[in-house]
Amino acid sequence: MAVYSSEFQLSTQGWNDVHDVTPKVAAVLSSANIQNGIATVFVPGSTAGITTIEYEQGVVEDLKSAINRLVPQNMHYSHDARWGDGNGFAHVRASLIGPSVTIPVVNGNLRLGTWQQIVVIDFDNRPRTRKICISIVGE
Amino acid sequence: MAVYSSEFQLSTQGWNDVHDVTPKVAAVLSSANIQNGIATVFVPGSTAGITTIEYEQGVVEDLKSAINRLVPQNMHYSHDARWGDGNGFAHVRASLIGPSVTIPVVNGNLRLGTWQQIVVIDFDNRPRTRKICISIVGE
Amino acid sequence: MAVYSSEFQLSTQGWNDVHDVTPKVAAVLSSANIQNGIATVFVPGSTAGITTIEYEQGVVEDLKSAINRLVPQNMHYSHDARWGDGNGFAHVRASLIGPSVTIPVVNGNLRLGTWQQIVVIDFDNRPRTRKICISIVGE
Repeated sequence: MAVYSSEFQLSTQGWNDVHDVTPKVAAVLSSANIQNGIATVFVPGSTAGITTIEYEQGVVEDLKSAINRLVPQNMHYSHDARWGDGNGFAHVRASLIGPSVTIPVVNGNLRLGTWQQIVVIDFDNRPRTRKICISIVGE
Repeated sequence: MAVYSSEFQLSTQGWNDVHDVTPKVAAVLSSANIQNGIATVFVPGSTAGITTIEYEQGVVEDLKSAINRLVPQNMHYSHDARWGDGNGFAHVRASLIGPSVTIPVVNGNLRLGTWQQIVVIDFDNRPRTRKICISIVGE
Repeated sequence: MAVYSSEFQLSTQGWNDVHDVTPKVAAVLSSANIQNGIATVFVPGSTAGITTIEYEQGVVEDLKSAINRLVPQNMHYSHDARWGDGNGFAHVRASLIGPSVTIPVVNGNLRLGTWQQIVVIDFDNRPRTRKICISIVGE
């Protein structure tokens, strides 16, 4: 049994910016020399989230539209009233999506579907440099 | 420390079809001979999701209604305009719910609540045969 | 490699009661003597959820408002019609948020962002005593 941890940086534009990080996660897995176990992909911070999606321009636009509709920018946010950040909507979106996914590792590969990618979504209202953390546990 | 991975097939009808997979996950855990650790249950694919729920007909109907209300089928989806699949709503629903849950294993059992079951929800617009992946890490 | 499991009790008020459990999770990690790996925080039960958030009064109020808006209390729930519990909305909210988060452990610390806390949200319609389960796997 072994554990392997790694991080990489990701430059984002905010405003529901969606990034496919699957190749980078797969590269970390290659370095880990772990054949079977689980991989957790996590974004530190409270205005970004991680999920999986078919990373296709249409679906990505559909997800952004749904997020904008469900948690609109232009309504009252107490966070903004208190702190003036103007990104209260981003905090709520991040909490609803969640900061991580955990994926089985089977025979040295991420056990994703053929059309399923790991995406980081930056909800903030400005460009950010994120660190994306991968922890793999297995043998 | 050990890792144990297994998959089983699940036939679904789509359209928010909700399946209680707790007995199958518990059976995999029994085979794993792992007393303490964590179990990740994951669905490969981009039009299904996994969460926990009290698997009772009323709650299941309530969850389906909420999903239909929050991400309606009958609106514009760019995915459908591009690909003609007609399942753009299913992709968005799957991304919002997420593809996995991770559950503590304590004294050889899944540490679920008494009225808490693991469910796979198939959001697609047609019957599917899914593979459900379980990876257990522990000792 | 080692696994360390622990639980603690949490008294909640229900009605979207949000509790920052980060200090308690960090204390469990200190006891675990695990430097690198992953920590899963899980709430047994079907009317509570776990996510991360900037635990600041404004954001917490914003999240509660969003949850109330997206899954209102005052609509028809089949669960209530069948069982009379009156907490159908709580079940739906819990399924949408999910029962756990998994966080990388790096150099003996939870790899959270500076302004990112682990929160338990109790959605039920009455006070509850919850058990919060932490399972840490690593070395």
